[in-house]
Amino acid sequence: MNASQFREAAHAAIEEIIQYYETLPSRPVLSTVTPGYLRPLLPSGPPQTGEAWPAIQADIERVIMPGLTHWQSPKFMAFYPASSTFPGMLGELYSAAFTAPAFNWLCSPAVTELETVVLDWVAQLLGLPECYLSKGEGGGVIQGSASEAIVTVMVAARERFVMRRFAEMEEGEEKERKMGEMRARLVALGSEHAHSSTQKAANIAGTRHRPVPAPKDTGFSMTGAALRKTIKECKSQGLEPFYLTATLGTTATCAIDDFEGIAEVIKDYPDIWVHVDAAYAGAALVCPEYQHLTKHFDKFDSFNFNMHKWLLTNFDASCLYIKHRKSLTSALSITPSYLRTPFSDTGLVTDYRDWQIPLGRRFRALKIWFVLRSYGIEGLQSHIRRHVQLGELFHSLLLTRPDLFVVLTGPAFALTVLAVRPKGWTKDGRRPSVTRADRPDPAHEAYLNDFTADAEARYKADSNAATQAVYERVNGSGELFLTSGIADGTYCIRVVSANPMAEEKYLRRAFEVLVKEAEAVVGTKEDE
Amino acid sequence: MNASQFREAAHAAIEEIIQYYETLPSRPVLSTVTPGYLRPLLPSGPPQTGEAWPAIQADIERVIMPGLTHWQSPKFMAFYPASSTFPGMLGELYSAAFTAPAFNWLCSPAVTELETVVLDWVAQLLGLPECYLSKGEGGGVIQGSASEAIVTVMVAARERFVMRRFAEMEEGEEKERKMGEMRARLVALGSEHAHSSTQKAANIAGTRHRPVPAPKDTGFSMTGAALRKTIKECKSQGLEPFYLTATLGTTATCAIDDFEGIAEVIKDYPDIWVHVDAAYAGAALVCPEYQHLTKHFDKFDSFNFNMHKWLLTNFDASCLYIKHRKSLTSALSITPSYLRTPFSDTGLVTDYRDWQIPLGRRFRALKIWFVLRSYGIEGLQSHIRRHVQLGELFHSLLLTRPDLFVVLTGPAFALTVLAVRPKGWTKDGRRPSVTRADRPDPAHEAYLNDFTADAEARYKADSNAATQAVYERVNGSGELFLTSGIADGTYCIRVVSANPMAEEKYLRRAFEVLVKEAEAVVGTKEDE
Repeated sequence: MNASQFREAAHAAIEEIIQYYETLPSRPVLSTVTPGYLRPLLPSGPPQTGEAWPAIQADIERVIMPGLTHWQSPKFMAFYPASSTFPGMLGELYSAAFTAPAFNWLCSPAVTELETVVLDWVAQLLGLPECYLSKGEGGGVIQGSASEAIVTVMVAARERFVMRRFAEMEEGEEKERKMGEMRARLVALGSEHAHSSTQKAANIAGTRHRPVPAPKDTGFSMTGAALRKTIKECKSQGLEPFYLTATLGTTATCAIDDFEGIAEVIKDYPDIWVHVDAAYAGAALVCPEYQHLTKHFDKFDSFNFNMHKWLLTNFDASCLYIKHRKSLTSALSITPSYLRTPFSDTGLVTDYRDWQIPLGRRFRALKIWFVLRSYGIEGLQSHIRRHVQLGELFHSLLLTRPDLFVVLTGPAFALTVLAVRPKGWTKDGRRPSVTRADRPDPAHEAYLNDFTADAEARYKADSNAATQAVYERVNGSGELFLTSGIADGTYCIRVVSANPMAEEKYLRRAFEVLVKEAEAVVGTKEDE
Repeated sequence: MNASQFREAAHAAIEEIIQYYETLPSRPVLSTVTPGYLRPLLPSGPPQTGEAWPAIQADIERVIMPGLTHWQSPKFMAFYPASSTFPGMLGELYSAAFTAPAFNWLCSPAVTELETVVLDWVAQLLGLPECYLSKGEGGGVIQGSASEAIVTVMVAARERFVMRRFAEMEEGEEKERKMGEMRARLVALGSEHAHSSTQKAANIAGTRHRPVPAPKDTGFSMTGAALRKTIKECKSQGLEPFYLTATLGTTATCAIDDFEGIAEVIKDYPDIWVHVDAAYAGAALVCPEYQHLTKHFDKFDSFNFNMHKWLLTNFDASCLYIKHRKSLTSALSITPSYLRTPFSDTGLVTDYRDWQIPLGRRFRALKIWFVLRSYGIEGLQSHIRRHVQLGELFHSLLLTRPDLFVVLTGPAFALTVLAVRPKGWTKDGRRPSVTRADRPDPAHEAYLNDFTADAEARYKADSNAATQAVYERVNGSGELFLTSGIADGTYCIRVVSANPMAEEKYLRRAFEVLVKEAEAVVGTKEDE
């Protein structure tokens, strides 16, 4: 493909992308292909000689499009959003053009330096404590995903822990053996509602993992008291807690752990590395009204949030901040002769390879830079606030049908989690299986009375069956894509609409669909 | 940025990229900025309100361009290449447009299914044994980098090892404790010339690492005998080798380990996971004349090579193949309620999140698909053969100046490794400090005589000083970018020219520059 063929191909690709975005609202959000759909559409191997672009491009529509789930569709209300925007795409295009596996500063100084600068910009924008800026001992680095960030800091935490324990011991076999034995006793902690990547990271790091209970009574938040109890239990069993994931916006319900309580406990256990996973909800910190949440972060060790979730930057762009970058680099730095440069040797530059698991890295700072500049601070803030308001609207709609829906949590950061109220439980006066201590909800207060444990179990079973049935009917219709979850044993439906195309009319329509399917499953008011 | 602004911005970006590629040969390959150059060029934070594209784009030239190291320049002969091509860029553009953190099949079925199909295509193209195809128990997955692939398989190897050892034991605290103690005794092996990512992966996995000697006598290849000796040493010290990196194309010299010998040894140690790292040289397997190298791979457990190095696909595109995919997924799979889907539960589909460290993943198969189709099998083969020939040409030029240069290794897969012959050693009849057993080289045979150990040490010190001086002068000139390395204590210069713009004239020019700088350092023939 020469330059003029590229120009022609790229123009055609851009038209196709524009057309894709323009027709997104009218496409079924969820692909309806069945497993194995793609292979029969392609030959059994690559062609003997090269093909021209028009033949290749035609296969996007024929082969790829039917198998896409449209995360940018306004009818996508599943998981958490993964936004993509035109400025982000341009960043990715330039990044590919300037390809470099930029592991060292020297590999392409702009890749490293732009990353340091834009991550400082983002830290300021979020109101992070100064200790996370690059000018001191900390700094930011772009990782591929929150899960990758968590493995990275967990390995650093593990090594910091064992190195501190054996700091005085002479290097050698005996020390290596003792360090190995200590690693075998380490346990990584996280709330039971922390994302599964904490458990996976512990598997990767070769340590144990224990969840800290975060029940519905505390709104699914991990408290300082629960954390202290778990730490003591571990220690009484001869295990050593070395790492904790605290979450700002849990996956299931967008709960926020009790950072103040955690900070208080951690004073007594200074060897435990505390990482704040704010993968989704961290984006809201661009609005000053949320920045009080960062108040205790200076007592923690690291923080990450994903610009690729709720901040208009296409996947992947996970921003990880570290208070003491030396903790990372001393765990991850290895410098053979072919990676040494005069700049690195003098410590004048940042070699981001020592801040991450892989060696090579893409030029991801470009897309973040383009997005920050295209939207500006005000554009980012209004983007977040608009979705928060849409979440409140959706929640208010649910409250108009207490006969059909129970709000489990939310609206929190545009996420509302609901269950379907099961048939037959309408008028006999038991309360639903959740409390919403922080947000009294008059429409549900009527149910708060003598609900026995036995009745609760039966209620929950009926509720779960009804909610699952409604969930499957909604997703089966192909009009919306929602995801389900389980919180405190309750099967629930999560509704989050926070991609750039989200609009009031789609949330109103989502409510209509939920009402229709819930009525089909549990009957209308008139049925009872 | 609306659709018409995007069209305009994207057209302008494409013109800039075309112009960048057209002017690459005339740009200095290595950035000349000094550390910290970028920050003063930017404001201290993002703008309050959004900026229009022309203002942002103008900063590419002003801020970014001076800090780029041009990996696509024909004067880039450093490290190993990282190719970028127009079809690859289009793949990245579509991938950004279709953004999805496609951890599950359901997240976007096309992302998973295209990946499975194109990785089967690539496996066939490379002549990999059938066990690495998806139709049986194996299959391929795209990772970000070879280093990431190595951590991934090492964790799988570690867990396979401990699970096998304690397969009969009842689940519980005692088993967990014993498994932890066993992990503390594990040791990962790799040739001393394996890429440093093996050692880093061991650090991440929390295991020990031991290098297997691969001296110059064996052409820097790891032999079966050396491997067996290291395994026995480890075992005699109570350690358990559980993993081995075998390399097809080591970083420093592109040496190939003795796969046949390794396969023989491994018969006696079936719990050791053997991974073949062919990050760079693996691309050559698209040519049938190299496919004999894969003969023993069916006895190993995994294989990876990077299409983003020598196969025309922009970073990142590391293809990892696994013989038993269950070994990976049983180490890395965790399925909380919010990641369950009916498709995954039935095992009908591949969820690639269980084949990798991170959860989310980009649609990287698109760019591989575009590249394979744009070039076709013949295009890929001629691309590789052209570079191999350029390497041979460069080597033949070096041989015309035995007074200045000693060829340490190569040409191997377009890489030649050389040292500068130091001043004062021209006519006194000692041999250079290397042997090239497999490739008799008449031009150097003259030096092969009574070279005492003492003289060898003095020779090496002089050679290292001369080579380093030449290396620094060449890179300092800004005309070329080479990297240095150390092999068997000899400081050497690596010359590899294998990006799409490589041409004979640039290699001839590289030789001229090396001659000029070597003459400046060690003098001309006439000086002696």
